[in-house]
Amino acid sequence: MDNTEMYKSLDIDLKAHDALMGALPVLFQECFLNKEQELKNLSYFYSVIADIHGARVKELVDHKTKGPVIGSFCIYVPEEIVLAACGQLVGLCAGADFWVPYGEQVVPKNLCPLIKAGVGAKYSRTCPYFQVVDLLIGENTCDGKKKTWEIFSDMVDMYIMDMPNKKSNEGLKLWQEEVKNLCNFLEKKFSKSITFDSLLNGIQKVNAKRNALRRLYNTRKNSPTPISGIDALLVTQIGFYDDIERYTKMVDALAQECEERASSLSSKNNSKKRILVTGSPMVVPNWKIHHVIETSGADVVVEENCTGTRYFKDNVSIENASTKEDLLKNISDRYINNINCACFSPNIGREEDILSLCKDYRVDGIVYVSLSFCTTYMVEAERIRKVAKENNIPMITLESDYSFGDLGQLRTRIEAFVENL
Amino acid sequence: MDNTEMYKSLDIDLKAHDALMGALPVLFQECFLNKEQELKNLSYFYSVIADIHGARVKELVDHKTKGPVIGSFCIYVPEEIVLAACGQLVGLCAGADFWVPYGEQVVPKNLCPLIKAGVGAKYSRTCPYFQVVDLLIGENTCDGKKKTWEIFSDMVDMYIMDMPNKKSNEGLKLWQEEVKNLCNFLEKKFSKSITFDSLLNGIQKVNAKRNALRRLYNTRKNSPTPISGIDALLVTQIGFYDDIERYTKMVDALAQECEERASSLSSKNNSKKRILVTGSPMVVPNWKIHHVIETSGADVVVEENCTGTRYFKDNVSIENASTKEDLLKNISDRYINNINCACFSPNIGREEDILSLCKDYRVDGIVYVSLSFCTTYMVEAERIRKVAKENNIPMITLESDYSFGDLGQLRTRIEAFVENL
Repeated sequence: MDNTEMYKSLDIDLKAHDALMGALPVLFQECFLNKEQELKNLSYFYSVIADIHGARVKELVDHKTKGPVIGSFCIYVPEEIVLAACGQLVGLCAGADFWVPYGEQVVPKNLCPLIKAGVGAKYSRTCPYFQVVDLLIGENTCDGKKKTWEIFSDMVDMYIMDMPNKKSNEGLKLWQEEVKNLCNFLEKKFSKSITFDSLLNGIQKVNAKRNALRRLYNTRKNSPTPISGIDALLVTQIGFYDDIERYTKMVDALAQECEERASSLSSKNNSKKRILVTGSPMVVPNWKIHHVIETSGADVVVEENCTGTRYFKDNVSIENASTKEDLLKNISDRYINNINCACFSPNIGREEDILSLCKDYRVDGIVYVSLSFCTTYMVEAERIRKVAKENNIPMITLESDYSFGDLGQLRTRIEAFVENL
Repeated sequence: MDNTEMYKSLDIDLKAHDALMGALPVLFQECFLNKEQELKNLSYFYSVIADIHGARVKELVDHKTKGPVIGSFCIYVPEEIVLAACGQLVGLCAGADFWVPYGEQVVPKNLCPLIKAGVGAKYSRTCPYFQVVDLLIGENTCDGKKKTWEIFSDMVDMYIMDMPNKKSNEGLKLWQEEVKNLCNFLEKKFSKSITFDSLLNGIQKVNAKRNALRRLYNTRKNSPTPISGIDALLVTQIGFYDDIERYTKMVDALAQECEERASSLSSKNNSKKRILVTGSPMVVPNWKIHHVIETSGADVVVEENCTGTRYFKDNVSIENASTKEDLLKNISDRYINNINCACFSPNIGREEDILSLCKDYRVDGIVYVSLSFCTTYMVEAERIRKVAKENNIPMITLESDYSFGDLGQLRTRIEAFVENL
């Protein structure tokens, strides 16, 4: 299908967009299509990537007649509230090196590639998701993003949620207010009234998505794992921008297939080492680390990051909630209590999460990956290293960006790490 | 005087400390003693630096029998409350390149030199100020510091104040609670009761220090300026760890001398360009940028940074305060409303401050200096650049660390900038 007219209506720079789209198929072929694949339900997710700037963008354009399309950069932005306001939430974190030089025209080079690529995607007018959104909801989870909102706000309509840096009583109160404020803001901004029922409906949809992803991830606890790490990562990544109900159904179908495959594989001996990946988020098309690990003879069995367990590990409670305020309180609690982002200090919950994932997923080694200049995760590596050591779990710390210049070096280090497990 | 016994009692690494102290006199000679100096009241401040690890450390050691010595890394830690708890507040920000390699053993290289040097100073046991403190009060003003407290807390007793990222109502409330919590914590921790009177007394002392510094800085509005920028910077830097009452007296005496000198100079023609320096803090012995500017034919007439106007520009109000709670509220208000740190987003107040300083100090050009990897100030440079351009004030943006490797490059850029003013 030719999307040219749609792209024109979204003010996309067609020539630059063509250059961007030229790079993706090669990468996708290399990371996904060249390997053995027995799970037939993955084909849906592969097709989403193959048409990444097509059908889904069209759906979002069409949705705009019914409600807003809202972009976010963080799993701290409550999708429940956006859904309750008849909105669709789209993850705008950008994972392509293509956008980095564009971003570096506006922000310093010493920022993480995710932020630079995000700025570059907007600045270059080559990402239809950026072009389609009516509003971008930012959040103050790191200095880089917090300060970059000031630059974004010259290019796009923005609303910013503040975050505390400590999970203290005061921090909790601040976050509760921010959640309420978001609700009020969206109601006003888009003239949609958010009711108990619409909020409950939103919560149920997002909880169902989380349930499906947990079901899928649970199958990875099996040895051998029924799904490769890179495929599981891809599935989670797509959850950030796909239609939530269709996506949930497709993840459930894939999970069921994985459950069956796990049973049929259970008699086989697994000689592969099992890796937990943890650190900064990995967003489409950043598949680099998984690709290197899984072509170095190991399996990634779980990701403790924002494009992994942190995204879906806990539901919003709907028990004992009889008012909209109760539901907002439950939303606020779920996010602040259960997402153990390195933006918090201290962040003991993450240490506990990693240890329990290592146990549940029978992990042989931890690959700790920070995006370059991602200060919070880089510094927190020191504490996780200590905890891993105390628990006799080998760990390697990597720092990388979106370029491919360090592939050889990464492969050497990862192969040596896997060999020594 | 031989301080060896005192250093031993503070568990200082004597050999490494000797190496550190070898470097300082050369730098001090180059930056201060080689230039013409007509202000006799500067000799006190020069002598403080010349004996930086001597008499003042001894005073702090002696003070410990009366009350705590408390370290901080930020002008957001309210000195008033520390004084009210019979404490002495010492600025621990570290400005020497010597400590950076020590710090890099524990924290990532991609952190600002101020943090790396701070960690290194403690880790190497070569800074008597770090060794003498009973408690370090951290604050969450940037990702680097926020996460580094987790590493510091393995080496030293720490208390951390959270900060909001927005000056919103919720942010204000969070900060008010943090100020109250600090007060309660110090009372309990050091068994000192903080009363209305002791708090009032603390406020009056810090306000007097601020008044003296403002009086001194006001003399720099004259053209020609009666005091060089590097000398004024030195005076402000010393305010972070000197005895507050003696210091205030000495600044007042210097300010009076500068007032007189300004009158006698007023008939002279000033051909030198007048520079405002803004950006990240500059702490002892980081005199690099001022030294280069002032040996390139220009005068630094004001610093809009934490070792400049941000440190002292507004007093804590004591009007209409009849209870301890009133005073704590006034303290909280003064800090959150008047310090326009780049940790806030948006940070419009800083744009206004810079513009009004440019006017009051008759500034010809702005030198914007970020420490390497100081994300908040680096990104905010873009907005300040816009504001400066709109107001036809030339601005140059520099990024530098504590090393001397970039001195030549800095000089070339600064000379070209000054020449074009």
